Amino acid sequence: MDKILLGHGSGGKLMHALINEHFSPVFGNSGAGDSAVVGVRSQTLAYTTDSYVVSPLFFPGGNIGDLAVCGTVNDLSVAGAEPLYLTAGFIIEEGFPMADLKRIIASMASAAKRAGVKIVAGDTKVVNRGKADGVFINTSGIGVLENGIDISPKNIREGDAVIISGELGNHGVAILAERNGLTFEPPVVSDTRPLNGLVRAMYQATSRIRFMRDPTRGGLATTLKEAALESGLCIRIREQSLPVPPPVSGACSLLGLDPLYVANEGILTAVVDPVDADRIVAAMRAHEHGRSAAVIGTVDRSAPGMVLLETAIGGSRILDMLPGEMLPRIC
Amino acid sequence: MDKILLGHGSGGKLMHALINEHFSPVFGNSGAGDSAVVGVRSQTLAYTTDSYVVSPLFFPGGNIGDLAVCGTVNDLSVAGAEPLYLTAGFIIEEGFPMADLKRIIASMASAAKRAGVKIVAGDTKVVNRGKADGVFINTSGIGVLENGIDISPKNIREGDAVIISGELGNHGVAILAERNGLTFEPPVVSDTRPLNGLVRAMYQATSRIRFMRDPTRGGLATTLKEAALESGLCIRIREQSLPVPPPVSGACSLLGLDPLYVANEGILTAVVDPVDADRIVAAMRAHEHGRSAAVIGTVDRSAPGMVLLETAIGGSRILDMLPGEMLPRIC
Repeated sequence: MDKILLGHGSGGKLMHALINEHFSPVFGNSGAGDSAVVGVRSQTLAYTTDSYVVSPLFFPGGNIGDLAVCGTVNDLSVAGAEPLYLTAGFIIEEGFPMADLKRIIASMASAAKRAGVKIVAGDTKVVNRGKADGVFINTSGIGVLENGIDISPKNIREGDAVIISGELGNHGVAILAERNGLTFEPPVVSDTRPLNGLVRAMYQATSRIRFMRDPTRGGLATTLKEAALESGLCIRIREQSLPVPPPVSGACSLLGLDPLYVANEGILTAVVDPVDADRIVAAMRAHEHGRSAAVIGTVDRSAPGMVLLETAIGGSRILDMLPGEMLPRIC
Repeated sequence: MDKILLGHGSGGKLMHALINEHFSPVFGNSGAGDSAVVGVRSQTLAYTTDSYVVSPLFFPGGNIGDLAVCGTVNDLSVAGAEPLYLTAGFIIEEGFPMADLKRIIASMASAAKRAGVKIVAGDTKVVNRGKADGVFINTSGIGVLENGIDISPKNIREGDAVIISGELGNHGVAILAERNGLTFEPPVVSDTRPLNGLVRAMYQATSRIRFMRDPTRGGLATTLKEAALESGLCIRIREQSLPVPPPVSGACSLLGLDPLYVANEGILTAVVDPVDADRIVAAMRAHEHGRSAAVIGTVDRSAPGMVLLETAIGGSRILDMLPGEMLPRIC
């Protein structure tokens, strides 16, 4: 492939190929939006970056500003870190309305306050009209990692329980509806929100969490497929356990989308020791951002590297990564 | 002003107004590309971000990739920190040639190696054709700050010496020449390079450096004006001491530019105790990136907040910040 395609930004197969072929060999560890774990003297930190190019900039439940703050807070949170500081880099198109910029900045400040993080450094670039699309925002973030916390798909073991923290598909469907002028009744609203409080509640229930990830681009299926590949185990989830809200499943049927591949911005999936599963789910349900938490599956050795969906009618479907691009510019 | 203008990204007056009016009140400390100083437990870190939108992407002496690495390394270096880790966030336009992306990535890897830093986390977004301009890169960086190091314009005192580490104007003129198909003889080549080694050499000469900054967007004049305003003192520089190479001064005359306002990507200005000045300049000249280091001026109380240029013919000129935009997308 000699040109960049939209699918190279999808979070799915094409993006993994791009990263594996071109970025990882040169940069070393550089995953799909994952946090790096770095040591600074005696302190272990999680460190991450994400650029946000969502279109439209404003959507039901949020805008690019709170999305940029929450997304990076969540990347750090699912690494098991306590997010502390963020930076914000703006690329703004000439002619962009100052009033919109003010709204975006105010949303960022409010999201940072909710998450208890500080935006400590910023940068602003302006490009000529027609050379960007309104505004793009990069946020990077650092968080502190307590001794002994180690979140990695490599820790996943046979028999583990797979947990989801909340409803699937709200963010992607909300963006798509806004982009296409569709309205649903009841309306579908993005789940953009910071998850560090929820993760804190989970760690209060147990210190033994093997793996966490926020299923953004590429959706839950792509996230679990990555985990299955990296752990060399089989992840088996039950369709009936998945919290897909009726408006999302209605919209997905209408639009030909699969909620398992739709982006989320306010949920996480976790893999834990089965003896801890009920206690963790109870702790999550007691938190405002984990009300729909549930065990959705298990880990076994039957089909290494695969994700299997056990359907409501008793069948079984192989879930692969999102192959190309389903919904460009979803975050 | 109800719309963003190109000048809002200039590094000059308009950008300062945008930051002071809209960003700083909401985010707290968020300067013009400066590093933040943050504490993580017992460790003090410098933390910074910069987005790069330079046009053209490839220019004599570098490309957007090594520029993005060096720029962020230099932001940390002039904060007095030892740069350790960088992140890289790419926004790529659909259809961008893979070969160009590979060249850019290779340049980033090579610049990181030269600077001795690691690029530890990355992110890739793709936007539709026509919604960006090739590729934009954000880099953030963290560095470790030794105890007792405190770089701030507030530390500047009456009688201090003002130092420059190298030639003025090479980066801006190289970009402008490339953009407009001009060639100079000898050619003007960007000074894009990492300055952490030079800063280390300076600290080996003395631990007493009051202030450092790399004069990028807005040039040396804007950087010194910021320092004068923040210190409440007058900075007086001598035109005859300024290392403006003949090809740059020739190009600037031809193009109607002032080398004092042209962006640089491989030099720094420092303000030091006059008793240390000669020792520091000698240490800088002994380093490959400080061969043209020189004392260019002094600090006094005569005109608080002002920068005065003593001209070759015995006159004196007030240097203000770059008012709007001279060279958009220079970095």
